[in-house]
Amino acid sequence: MDVSQAIRMKRAVREFTDDPIPEQLLTAVVNAGRRAQSAKNRQAWHFIIAQDREVLVELSQLGQFAKQLAGAAAAIVILTPDPAERWSIMFDAGQAAAYMQLAAWELGIGSCPVSIYEPDRARELLGFPPKFHVRAVLSLGYPKDPSSLTASPHAGGRKTLSEVISYDRWGS
Amino acid sequence: MDVSQAIRMKRAVREFTDDPIPEQLLTAVVNAGRRAQSAKNRQAWHFIIAQDREVLVELSQLGQFAKQLAGAAAAIVILTPDPAERWSIMFDAGQAAAYMQLAAWELGIGSCPVSIYEPDRARELLGFPPKFHVRAVLSLGYPKDPSSLTASPHAGGRKTLSEVISYDRWGS
Repeated sequence: MDVSQAIRMKRAVREFTDDPIPEQLLTAVVNAGRRAQSAKNRQAWHFIIAQDREVLVELSQLGQFAKQLAGAAAAIVILTPDPAERWSIMFDAGQAAAYMQLAAWELGIGSCPVSIYEPDRARELLGFPPKFHVRAVLSLGYPKDPSSLTASPHAGGRKTLSEVISYDRWGS
Repeated sequence: MDVSQAIRMKRAVREFTDDPIPEQLLTAVVNAGRRAQSAKNRQAWHFIIAQDREVLVELSQLGQFAKQLAGAAAAIVILTPDPAERWSIMFDAGQAAAYMQLAAWELGIGSCPVSIYEPDRARELLGFPPKFHVRAVLSLGYPKDPSSLTASPHAGGRKTLSEVISYDRWGS
């Protein structure tokens, strides 16, 4: 699948079938995140791949919009240094997350970033050390509605190009 | 170009030829950023496409590692709300930046994120309103070394998969 096509067609998927994701594909998705560029090539991330149903259900209770994780085939928990340290930490996490979502899409796997509102409970659940922090998790799975993989983009789903572009200086 | 191939092959490009990027391709790159997912679909970004040599040279003086912008065919200045407001602002900026870099790569265009250390001077230069802020800019252009577009990934350029992955719980 072309990059441009994947970017045009990809949509958020929050409802998943019960089918597990083959290990090899899940690894390919995380591998895309591993390959992402980062400030000074720091790669200051760690990815916890959650497939244990109990872990997924517990994660689903750690954010107002995290319920989808309970029914996901897997989750990728994105660990980073303290986001307050520098802006590039979450910028880089976003770069890795974008690569993983796009790589998943190419494999027919749906995903969506999920915010964790209770990072302390996530730490307790997953046991990661103090130098790491969690704000975002990706849900992953095969779309309950398989037509979402081939549907045209929602009309009006994004601002128009002219709304978000200027040339050389603001407003021009 | 497959998504997975683009992610595997893409490398940072900081030295560019003098060739301009055709308008249509530059638009396609920004369009990839426009299509990126964002928290609550806020799309709280604006992209200033800089091609004016004077603007590029001035931008190149606003960060310790920004010199490459002086010789770039173009830059995409990523404007966001105040990064201090919430972590998702730079996470989303990173997602859009990743899409743009990957879309550029598919078109044979090299790029690299550049940090802006002097956001106030950038505001003065580009004239964007108080609600917007800048931390990151993408440099864009045709690689001075065209072999970089087809070269194998650097050995050791990224941590190994086992260094950055755990399963279900930290360290397992």
